[in-house]
Amino acid sequence: MSNLVLGIDIGGTNTGFALVDEYGKIHFKENLATLNYVEFIDLAKHIFSIIANAVSTNSELLMPISIGVGAPNGNYFRGTIDFAPNLRWEGIVDVKYAFDKFFHVPTCVTNDANAAAMGEHRFGSAKGMNDFVIVTLGTGLGSGFFVNGKLMYGHHSYGGEMGHIIVESEGRPCGCGRKGCLETYSSVTGLKRNLLELISSGSESELIDFKLEDLSGKMIEEAAGRGDKASLEAFEMAGKYLGKAMANVAAITDPEAFILFGGLAQAKELIFKPTTYHFQQNLLEIFKNKIKVLPSALSGNNAAILGAAALAWDSVL
Amino acid sequence: MSNLVLGIDIGGTNTGFALVDEYGKIHFKENLATLNYVEFIDLAKHIFSIIANAVSTNSELLMPISIGVGAPNGNYFRGTIDFAPNLRWEGIVDVKYAFDKFFHVPTCVTNDANAAAMGEHRFGSAKGMNDFVIVTLGTGLGSGFFVNGKLMYGHHSYGGEMGHIIVESEGRPCGCGRKGCLETYSSVTGLKRNLLELISSGSESELIDFKLEDLSGKMIEEAAGRGDKASLEAFEMAGKYLGKAMANVAAITDPEAFILFGGLAQAKELIFKPTTYHFQQNLLEIFKNKIKVLPSALSGNNAAILGAAALAWDSVL
Repeated sequence: MSNLVLGIDIGGTNTGFALVDEYGKIHFKENLATLNYVEFIDLAKHIFSIIANAVSTNSELLMPISIGVGAPNGNYFRGTIDFAPNLRWEGIVDVKYAFDKFFHVPTCVTNDANAAAMGEHRFGSAKGMNDFVIVTLGTGLGSGFFVNGKLMYGHHSYGGEMGHIIVESEGRPCGCGRKGCLETYSSVTGLKRNLLELISSGSESELIDFKLEDLSGKMIEEAAGRGDKASLEAFEMAGKYLGKAMANVAAITDPEAFILFGGLAQAKELIFKPTTYHFQQNLLEIFKNKIKVLPSALSGNNAAILGAAALAWDSVL
Repeated sequence: MSNLVLGIDIGGTNTGFALVDEYGKIHFKENLATLNYVEFIDLAKHIFSIIANAVSTNSELLMPISIGVGAPNGNYFRGTIDFAPNLRWEGIVDVKYAFDKFFHVPTCVTNDANAAAMGEHRFGSAKGMNDFVIVTLGTGLGSGFFVNGKLMYGHHSYGGEMGHIIVESEGRPCGCGRKGCLETYSSVTGLKRNLLELISSGSESELIDFKLEDLSGKMIEEAAGRGDKASLEAFEMAGKYLGKAMANVAAITDPEAFILFGGLAQAKELIFKPTTYHFQQNLLEIFKNKIKVLPSALSGNNAAILGAAALAWDSVL
């Protein structure tokens, strides 16, 4: 029986968790509805009871030797979730404390994008890389950076907010209260906004009758696949802003690779092609053709859990 | 007698070097004219003979236990200077090899901005900081980053090219061959270009009859001190671009402080005031009033040598 860790991905809707070995193999996995738990400690307790029950009844399983938690606004230094707008618990949630009450093993917490970076580094596309960037293209745009072989947390544990680089002064309003942030153009939400802007400027589209809240990234991806003009342009726009921003980021951190992760990245060539083109166009000469742009090797439902598990392994290996 | 290291700052015109103890005290210092040496190894040999002679004749001195070299395009991983446009030696210069021929102690090489960051970290404003950024505002704009307590070299040893973040698409032509790089607005050269652009747009100035090559940063600083309108606006413009770029960089690396260094930084409030204002204006809410903007504590001629000496100490401590 090999040692196992517990990887937990806490999202606004679902909380997924799994017992994972050091090769990234999942031995047991379960999901809970995050919204059902008024107090965070109740969620921790329920996860404990499910894991304890599974271990008690399955001779192949052991209790985890450490716990990794990926969550929006996860604070690595404090082991907390701080003021996460999309979670039901307000203020500062002491995640480490709650799990310690039941499991009595080391618990590490980080944000979703950092967890994804840990996962790619241990189990995915970034194996063996010391310096890389993961860009998570979901509802928003997150990022996690490895520098000198380690995750870059930053001084306040807020490192990697690449989605909030301002790419257009006086650009689109962003949820952060400012204007022109990268994630307002290059994320699933950004893609939808690109489409509506393009349609309103006269670009033709089969999606002309949809409102923002009725659109999905998948609908635009499928329309683009059928040659829909505005949808193709919406991807081009997302890729242009993303590629240019990546070129600026490369000038700062000089990574070996950028790894694109999340819903928008699953649109494959539709997003990779314009992103890579504008990235190369805007790179400093010394970096040209030296920095890879790769898809995640952890795609699918388990990626976030594997990232959290990698964090847990990192704390004990 | 305390142990000493040799810090060497190689510039296009002068090469300064000094024997430095672990507290940053200079025990012996000398300068040579860089242009006099056809082959790099001749420069290394001359430095050796001067140091050996000084040590032989001064009972307070010892031969250095390690050597640190700061130079334009210094490559830490290879111990070389690579294709430096402002030095007389072409191609790749094997610095480590040359010093090893004479001194037989470890030699480390890095670029000027990284050396400055090492110096601030060991002897200056960044003592005790694990995550900070140094911005060198000279003829160009360089930068050096500490992340997790260590210098961020990047995968190809080209990290920290903050001067080549593109801040205006289709902006001013830059020496790197692209357009709109930060250093074309926020550096001594950028300041001069700002002034001429402002004058040509009708802003009043006592410097109206000067050409780019006849202007200096000091002239604009002095004119601004006398209330010259275009000169004040030129500083405001340099600070606006720099402050906004620093806010974007903060979103990525989440530093404890930015430290401004070099000629333009010596203009004090003229550059600090607009930079800090636009930095705060453009920061993500979570960072507001949390990130310091500080002057270098190593100002003056010795800063670059102390940075190189810090690199040398880092390799042995």
